[in-house]
Amino acid sequence: MQIEKVILAKRPIGEPTFDNFNLEIFNFSEIKTGEIFVKVKWLSLDPYMRGRMDSAKSYASPVEIGEAMEGECIGEIIDTKNEKFEVGELVIGKFGWVSHAVSNGYGLRKLERTNIPEQYFLGVLGMPGHTAWTGLNKIANAKKEETLVISAASGAVGSLAGQLAKKKGLKVLGIAGSDEKCSYVTNELGFDACINHNKIKDNMEFRNLIKSYCPYGVDIYFENVAGKTLEAIIPNMNDFGRIAVCGMISWYSGKGINEAMALPKLWRTILVKRLKVNGFIIFDHKETYPQFIEEVTPFIQKQQIIYKEDIRIGLSNAPSAFIDLLNGRNFGKMLVKVGD
Amino acid sequence: MQIEKVILAKRPIGEPTFDNFNLEIFNFSEIKTGEIFVKVKWLSLDPYMRGRMDSAKSYASPVEIGEAMEGECIGEIIDTKNEKFEVGELVIGKFGWVSHAVSNGYGLRKLERTNIPEQYFLGVLGMPGHTAWTGLNKIANAKKEETLVISAASGAVGSLAGQLAKKKGLKVLGIAGSDEKCSYVTNELGFDACINHNKIKDNMEFRNLIKSYCPYGVDIYFENVAGKTLEAIIPNMNDFGRIAVCGMISWYSGKGINEAMALPKLWRTILVKRLKVNGFIIFDHKETYPQFIEEVTPFIQKQQIIYKEDIRIGLSNAPSAFIDLLNGRNFGKMLVKVGD
Repeated sequence: MQIEKVILAKRPIGEPTFDNFNLEIFNFSEIKTGEIFVKVKWLSLDPYMRGRMDSAKSYASPVEIGEAMEGECIGEIIDTKNEKFEVGELVIGKFGWVSHAVSNGYGLRKLERTNIPEQYFLGVLGMPGHTAWTGLNKIANAKKEETLVISAASGAVGSLAGQLAKKKGLKVLGIAGSDEKCSYVTNELGFDACINHNKIKDNMEFRNLIKSYCPYGVDIYFENVAGKTLEAIIPNMNDFGRIAVCGMISWYSGKGINEAMALPKLWRTILVKRLKVNGFIIFDHKETYPQFIEEVTPFIQKQQIIYKEDIRIGLSNAPSAFIDLLNGRNFGKMLVKVGD
Repeated sequence: MQIEKVILAKRPIGEPTFDNFNLEIFNFSEIKTGEIFVKVKWLSLDPYMRGRMDSAKSYASPVEIGEAMEGECIGEIIDTKNEKFEVGELVIGKFGWVSHAVSNGYGLRKLERTNIPEQYFLGVLGMPGHTAWTGLNKIANAKKEETLVISAASGAVGSLAGQLAKKKGLKVLGIAGSDEKCSYVTNELGFDACINHNKIKDNMEFRNLIKSYCPYGVDIYFENVAGKTLEAIIPNMNDFGRIAVCGMISWYSGKGINEAMALPKLWRTILVKRLKVNGFIIFDHKETYPQFIEEVTPFIQKQQIIYKEDIRIGLSNAPSAFIDLLNGRNFGKMLVKVGD
C-alpha cells in the first residue's frame, strides 16, 4: 500500500512558499511485531511548525530535509501487532503531515469516542486549548477585574484564553487582523473590544488606541504575535504587569525584525514597572492537562465556549493551509482533514 | 545657621557632568513644633539616582531643577520639637544630598548604636544589601548547584549577592570592570571566576568566555548593567533560566543604546528557553527587610561576609563621587562622609 507524506523539501528563507514542501509517496508492506498501523484522519496545523523548518536549535529539533513535516494528528488504527491497541481505536500522536503512520505505540494517547467531535482534541480541548488555559492561569496568574490584552485573538489559543478570562471576570481586549475577525471576537466570543491591527497607521495610533480601551492600563499581555503589537503594548503595561510569551508569529519568518524596537526600551520598562516576562511552551505542562480538561470540557458540552474551525480537505492542501495560517488567512483553528 | 545642599542645576544630556550640580547654601533659623533637625553624617550614592535626574516618569518622581538631589542618609538629631525623637539619636532617612535636614519624623527609621559601623546600614545591611538578598532569593529563586552570573560583581549589590550565593552552594561567575576588581571578586569574595569586561574585544569573545566558565550554561543572571554583558549572557542562558533585572547602569546615560541588540533575538530566547525575566525594585519588598537583616547580620558580625566601602569626604565631593560611580571608578559601596 502507499503512504503519502508532505516532506520539507528545502529550508525557507523568510516566508515559506510551496517550494519548501513536497508531497511524496512511499510504499509500505507490513508492520512488525509490536507495531500498529494508523490511518490519519486529522492533522493540526500550528504556528510553532514554522520554527521546525529552520535549522536553528530551538526547544525541539528541526525537521530534517526530506523528512515529513512534524504535526499532531488524530488517527484510527487499521492494523495492529501490538496487544495494547485494537483495530478501530482512535489515537492522538505526532504522526506528522502524513496519510498513514507506523508506530510502536510510544507517546500515543487513546481517544474515546464521545459526543464531542474528535478533532476538538487537536484544538480547543487539545494542545492549543491547554496552551490558552496555562498561559492565563499558570503563567500570567490572571485575577478577576484585571485587564488582559490578547493578540491573535481569533486564533485557536487567543479565542479560548479570552473566553476563559471573561468567565473569570477580567476585562479583555483582543487584537486581530481583520474587521470580520474583530466582529467575531467581540460579538461572538464576548471580548470587551477588539482592535484590527491592519487598520493602524503607526505605533502612536496603536498605542493610544490600546490606551483608550484600557484606561487603567494593561495588567496582562498574552503574547502570540510580537512585532508592532508588542511595541504598542509595552508603554501601556501597568506596574507589576505580566507578559506571557506564547508565540511571536509576526517575527517567525524574519519579517519586521530589522525595524523592531530597540531592546533597551523594553529592558527599562521591565525594570521600572517591575514586569514579569515569562516564556512558556505547553509541552512542559503535561501534568496540568487533566485539570484543564476537567475545567473546560463542561463549557464545551454546554456550548458556553465558542470554537471555530478552519478545515482544509486533503493532505496535499497542508502547505497552502499552513502558509495561510502564517499570514493570518485562517479564521479559527486550522485543521487538515486527511482521511475519513 | 547654614545648610548646604547639592541641587540639580540642569538635567543631563547623556552622562552627568559637574555642570548638572550646584552646591548651594541656605539659611535656616528654627524648627517648628513636631519637627526635628538632623545633621547628616553619611550619604549613600547609588546608580538609581541617575534616573531621578531625567524628567521621564519612572517608578519615582524625578528630582526637580533647583531641588536637592535625592539620597538615603544616616543623620544625628541635633535639635527636636517632636517627643518621639531625642537629641543624639541616629536616624536613617531620605534626606538627600544635604548637610542638614528638617523633618517631621515621617518615614524615618531609628538606628541603634551597635558594634557594627553605622554606615553599613546604608550598604551591606541597607538598601543595596537587601536588594542583593531579594534578587537572589525572592526574584531568581536561586537553588544549590545552579550557575549564577552577576554583573557589576564588585559593587554594593553584586558583591553581597555573589557571597550569599556561594554560601547557598551555587556556582558564581562575576563580571567586573578591571583586573583589580576581578581579583578582589575571586580572591576575596570567593566567586568561582570573574571576567573583566573591559578586556573583551567583541560579543563573540565575551559569549565564548562566559561559556568556558559556565560549561553547563547559566541558570540565573543577576542583571545590574545590561549592554554588552546582557548580549553575551543571553545565548548562554539555560532552559527555565531566570533573569533578575535590578539595574542597567551601562544604558543609564544613553550610551550604547543605539548599538544594542535587537529585541526579537531576546524575545525568541525568552520563548524558546522559557525564561523568566523579572524586574524588581527594593522599595516594593520592605516586608522582607527584617528577614534579610536576621539572616545577614550574623555573617557581618562573624566577618564571614567581605564588604568594601569607597568613602569620599565632604558633601561638595558628592558630584564627582557620583560621576565616578556611574563610570565604574568606585571600588566598593560609594558613600559620602558628610559630617562627623
